[in-house]
Amino acid sequence: MAYIKLNNENLPGIVGLLDYRPETAKHRNGLAETLLRGKSTLTSGERELIAASVSNWNNCHFCFSSHGASAAAHLETSIDLLDEIKNGLGNTELSPKMKRLLNIAQKVQMGGKNVTREDIDRAREKGATDLEIHDTVLIAAAFCMFNRYVDGLGTWAPEEKEAYIEMGEKLAHQGYTAE
Amino acid sequence: MAYIKLNNENLPGIVGLLDYRPETAKHRNGLAETLLRGKSTLTSGERELIAASVSNWNNCHFCFSSHGASAAAHLETSIDLLDEIKNGLGNTELSPKMKRLLNIAQKVQMGGKNVTREDIDRAREKGATDLEIHDTVLIAAAFCMFNRYVDGLGTWAPEEKEAYIEMGEKLAHQGYTAE
Repeated sequence: MAYIKLNNENLPGIVGLLDYRPETAKHRNGLAETLLRGKSTLTSGERELIAASVSNWNNCHFCFSSHGASAAAHLETSIDLLDEIKNGLGNTELSPKMKRLLNIAQKVQMGGKNVTREDIDRAREKGATDLEIHDTVLIAAAFCMFNRYVDGLGTWAPEEKEAYIEMGEKLAHQGYTAE
Repeated sequence: MAYIKLNNENLPGIVGLLDYRPETAKHRNGLAETLLRGKSTLTSGERELIAASVSNWNNCHFCFSSHGASAAAHLETSIDLLDEIKNGLGNTELSPKMKRLLNIAQKVQMGGKNVTREDIDRAREKGATDLEIHDTVLIAAAFCMFNRYVDGLGTWAPEEKEAYIEMGEKLAHQGYTAE
């Protein structure tokens, strides 16, 4: 049970918080929709992989599982992708550019000042554009917010990965602003 | 100079990033406006103190200075408030409730899982409502995003605190969604 009384105790993770505070929810939803499903030269699958990886590094089970499930839905693969993300995506086919962007995301997760001009140059060498670098940094930063929001208020989350399959499909195909 | 080409090199910190990517800026602006200037039983001065303190703990000079300056404008005190925030606000008159909320914000800054039910109970003992606790957690989490965004992209920021006085007045009195 969350640390505050949400009056929606059946809703897990951020879902209960969004229901509790619609004034802030609409901005969170708009940001997630733009970053993860808006127009981009990164696929939504790639962007959800960044989101799920950052959530894993932040040890946020709900965000990791739901965005990992969304990545699996976009990439048309099984929910076992969650295990792969936990293991660092070593067995997942990633472009060299994505590997360098994930490196930037990991630096952002540890703190913005960890990102160096060399990290940026190495992503550019593999074809990353300025806008892709911008969005990678902002996705990683945004999940440092969402993860803290979800865990800082002690929300509950289903344990088993199979519980996130339907949510992942919904996030991937209906998005973050659907009523 | 920022790590990516913003075409607005005269704009410091997050200001240049917001100008570069209006599609994400509008959601960031809406969130900041709601959290820091929206209807609340916490004053805007108190909320900006939380924002500036988190930015200081994250070592983000631009966000710390601009939101500290906004706090000073709301509280009608001098820009020397920035030194006070850096020193932990020991000489600033804070309600017992605010001290407990700042403790929660500091836990959030370190990672959401650091917040305990005891931290929440201790804030409640001093009169904090559930909505105040919710907003404190979300303000602290949001600045963990903004700080990483600003520093992860290597933006520049004026060094001297006096350079932030005008910006603080503008943020306090015109807000985050003014054109």
